[in-house]
Amino acid sequence: MAYIGSPVIIDKLLYQPKNSLVNQSINAKEIEEPLNGDGFGIGWYAKDVNTEPVTFVSVHPAWSNRNLRNLAPKIKSDCFIAHVRAASVGEVSESNCHPFQYKDILMAHNGGVENFGNIKRKIREPLTDELYNWIKGQTDSEHIFSFLLNDLLRNNKEITPDAVVTSFENTFTALKKMMTENNIKEEAYLNMVVTNGTFIVGTRYVTDPKEEPLTLYHSEGSRFVVEDGVTHLMAPEDNDHAVLVVSEKLSDSKDWTLIPKNHFVIVENSLNVRIKPIKA
Amino acid sequence: MAYIGSPVIIDKLLYQPKNSLVNQSINAKEIEEPLNGDGFGIGWYAKDVNTEPVTFVSVHPAWSNRNLRNLAPKIKSDCFIAHVRAASVGEVSESNCHPFQYKDILMAHNGGVENFGNIKRKIREPLTDELYNWIKGQTDSEHIFSFLLNDLLRNNKEITPDAVVTSFENTFTALKKMMTENNIKEEAYLNMVVTNGTFIVGTRYVTDPKEEPLTLYHSEGSRFVVEDGVTHLMAPEDNDHAVLVVSEKLSDSKDWTLIPKNHFVIVENSLNVRIKPIKA
Amino acid sequence: MAYIGSPVIIDKLLYQPKNSLVNQSINAKEIEEPLNGDGFGIGWYAKDVNTEPVTFVSVHPAWSNRNLRNLAPKIKSDCFIAHVRAASVGEVSESNCHPFQYKDILMAHNGGVENFGNIKRKIREPLTDELYNWIKGQTDSEHIFSFLLNDLLRNNKEITPDAVVTSFENTFTALKKMMTENNIKEEAYLNMVVTNGTFIVGTRYVTDPKEEPLTLYHSEGSRFVVEDGVTHLMAPEDNDHAVLVVSEKLSDSKDWTLIPKNHFVIVENSLNVRIKPIKA
Amino acid sequence: MAYIGSPVIIDKLLYQPKNSLVNQSINAKEIEEPLNGDGFGIGWYAKDVNTEPVTFVSVHPAWSNRNLRNLAPKIKSDCFIAHVRAASVGEVSESNCHPFQYKDILMAHNGGVENFGNIKRKIREPLTDELYNWIKGQTDSEHIFSFLLNDLLRNNKEITPDAVVTSFENTFTALKKMMTENNIKEEAYLNMVVTNGTFIVGTRYVTDPKEEPLTLYHSEGSRFVVEDGVTHLMAPEDNDHAVLVVSEKLSDSKDWTLIPKNHFVIVENSLNVRIKPIKA
Repeated sequence: MAYIGSPVIIDKLLYQPKNSLVNQSINAKEIEEPLNGDGFGIGWYAKDVNTEPVTFVSVHPAWSNRNLRNLAPKIKSDCFIAHVRAASVGEVSESNCHPFQYKDILMAHNGGVENFGNIKRKIREPLTDELYNWIKGQTDSEHIFSFLLNDLLRNNKEITPDAVVTSFENTFTALKKMMTENNIKEEAYLNMVVTNGTFIVGTRYVTDPKEEPLTLYHSEGSRFVVEDGVTHLMAPEDNDHAVLVVSEKLSDSKDWTLIPKNHFVIVENSLNVRIKPIKA
Repeated sequence: MAYIGSPVIIDKLLYQPKNSLVNQSINAKEIEEPLNGDGFGIGWYAKDVNTEPVTFVSVHPAWSNRNLRNLAPKIKSDCFIAHVRAASVGEVSESNCHPFQYKDILMAHNGGVENFGNIKRKIREPLTDELYNWIKGQTDSEHIFSFLLNDLLRNNKEITPDAVVTSFENTFTALKKMMTENNIKEEAYLNMVVTNGTFIVGTRYVTDPKEEPLTLYHSEGSRFVVEDGVTHLMAPEDNDHAVLVVSEKLSDSKDWTLIPKNHFVIVENSLNVRIKPIKA
Repeated sequence: MAYIGSPVIIDKLLYQPKNSLVNQSINAKEIEEPLNGDGFGIGWYAKDVNTEPVTFVSVHPAWSNRNLRNLAPKIKSDCFIAHVRAASVGEVSESNCHPFQYKDILMAHNGGVENFGNIKRKIREPLTDELYNWIKGQTDSEHIFSFLLNDLLRNNKEITPDAVVTSFENTFTALKKMMTENNIKEEAYLNMVVTNGTFIVGTRYVTDPKEEPLTLYHSEGSRFVVEDGVTHLMAPEDNDHAVLVVSEKLSDSKDWTLIPKNHFVIVENSLNVRIKPIKA
Repeated sequence: MAYIGSPVIIDKLLYQPKNSLVNQSINAKEIEEPLNGDGFGIGWYAKDVNTEPVTFVSVHPAWSNRNLRNLAPKIKSDCFIAHVRAASVGEVSESNCHPFQYKDILMAHNGGVENFGNIKRKIREPLTDELYNWIKGQTDSEHIFSFLLNDLLRNNKEITPDAVVTSFENTFTALKKMMTENNIKEEAYLNMVVTNGTFIVGTRYVTDPKEEPLTLYHSEGSRFVVEDGVTHLMAPEDNDHAVLVVSEKLSDSKDWTLIPKNHFVIVENSLNVRIKPIKA
């Protein structure tokens, strides 16, 4: 889940909706494996202090975490990412929890690359020493983000949505090539989201175009209202504006738009939303 | 799960069966709430060393616990209790993990008492100072066991299966009285198991006779064989003997006998099994 | 450590000073046992949201905690309590971590009562059911606070500094009586601090007047400045005001005033500081 | 600490001596940094089951770990390694806890390589894919062991003490070259121990011959007796034999022999001890 917009108390999106992210940690609805109990993480921006986000992660399940339960109703932020993990590649450790942070940037991934061990060293090869040593854990996710960051920082002075879009395309293209060359025949699921606190770029992507990617939705309006566990999105107004990108719908209402297969969802600083094909 | 019999490597019962206890931690089949991800515990006897058991507990889910995964294939024991927890009363903390240990005795509980706070202080009142201070956590389970121990130690010099049976009956009778007097109208589910390493006493009990207790099975034979995840129980032989008491069947075979409603299952030192009504 | 005053980023007091609380977790200077590695906790008020504080606790040592390290530079608060624990009574568990929270109130303790098991049940006896069940852990500290709260809530409609002072005196008097009647001969060390976000009451107290209590200091000024790890307190100004109550001095400067033996330090809503003898 | 010899209950070496490893976790005597509170690990062989050891690790300090406290008096083994960690390179995570295990082999390290990030990718380059992906954590230790294993497995069909000795020399020689070429001027401290359950090879090594390595001792006899916290080593007998390799002496007696600077200590299957210079 990634949010950008008017400041919101994150409890409203993490706990209050019936299909909130914390409830998804116990019982996700739109994915084969309903359990996401192998840790969680939230990263948020506190721009009154500075531009670097805070990350708070834990190897405990989100549903019973006392600290998350206490923090959520008191944190007000205009941009955050929250993630619950079902471990595929990599042990249950804080280093493997999303979101990953590199300076001002937060990143999270829903999906996976089978037999990732086949290409791990290939992904690391082009990295600068700094990014090579930035990697702390064992996940496919963190390694793919390090490749993305390497491309992004090499080619850009300024981090813009378009720069991130291009680096995603370069990364997915390179990844597919590595997979082919290293005998990974299974498709990889790559729903990823990147934010620097001023914009969000998300991908709904699967490497094999014959397959269906995992779900990814966006929703926009003025602000979220939760009544009896049901999230309503108020119509856009002048003063308030909010965009949410989520793996699972928080309610059954019509507020949620499925991102098309192998497309980007780009939420710009203006909170304008663009949907765009991924060329990779 | 409680085991007594010929020494067994506990991995064989904890991990190898398709519906093993560790798999029940993710997806229990015979209970409304399929998730038991709020910690786990095992207690086993190492009688070559001494009569006190070892307990190993964790607030992490059993399914991803590296230490349990490593220990299970190396621990051989002739008596153990294993438990996966779905927190009802009490936080997710080591103090609230089963089995509870008092000297040579191990105890575990499947079930719960609603509105337990109404009677917590009543349960503690009769306790000796030693047992009062023995309580470390907040669960209904640990409190009920302290009451049972208090009755057991006051009335017996030697801990025998019959002594435990009588103390269970005294405890359940007292508990029902406390519940009535303190406005707890919901039935309490009290499947409990006690062992001292030489015998097992288990209960399948619900306070309201109109309701059905949670499931409890026993199984006996010479030894357990796991083939392709399916547990087979070999017919009794001279040298090997094994009895298992479980909340959920480990396979769909006919090896498992449901304990009748509101009955004890008593496994004596000889491994003889008795089924007996609970008078409470 | 308890702070009240102009909003401060808590990193400035938790990490930046050479003898910061986090460094005290490794190597406290003014106490016989230099190690406080058995968990920690912070509680702070986010008054832009509501009057209930947030608590964040952990059983891990403060010195290596990634989440505390990340949160501290982003939390700005006008009132907080921070604590590092050296376990005496009670296991290393989240339930035993300070500060303890009851609604709007935060409480922390430095010290201990030897043979606390002798009086545990006596302390619990007068408690309302609500406070009886509020106790989650095993510490002398939490039990004493439950007694204090019981006295405070029974006798007052409004929680004021004077009400807390009186309840502390009632609590310490009752505690000394219980200790005498239950064969506790060792003196008890009771440096405690209570805040509701608008005032602080702290005690520097030992039950045996022949002994010296643990250290407790206060410091006041406009704001804290940390240069090269040394904390300076700026002279009082019109706009900024800050009061700190600490177990150990954060620097060797003259900013720190030792609270006299068996005295209260009271920081009122106006940030006016009063020192007053404890009648108990 | 590495032990090989007659089966011993590991509590006797981990907890009972006054300067036991668990006490060293709080207050090590022979090293500048006395605190080893960033996790611990033990690995032991249960040869009645199979040749693969068990590892049990935790990110919690050893001194307060309930599971270690419970396991230690019940585990009897003829070969084990125990380690308490003071984190230098790498976060506090289970993946960074020693001992590291590769199939039948256990490894632990006391020391460190400054600016290890400069050579991390160089160390990984020659590794087979299997060893590349075997690395789970971030420590210098695990990376150096992967290099050692790579050399060992490439050059030997059978793992013998002499094979390990040669691979250590190859590893240290290569490491020194990498350090020189990548601008690491500080000496590296490389006290390392490797066992496969039938022998132990330990190193007491510093890369700069002008510096002194960290301490490493060995001790041998029939068995260890602990009286009032003081470890006595009984004179060799026919039936019992025990060799211990430790970073710190467990007592002030004359039982402990300092390994000379830049030498191996080799304990063969026969429990014969050889001291030999390290050629690197």
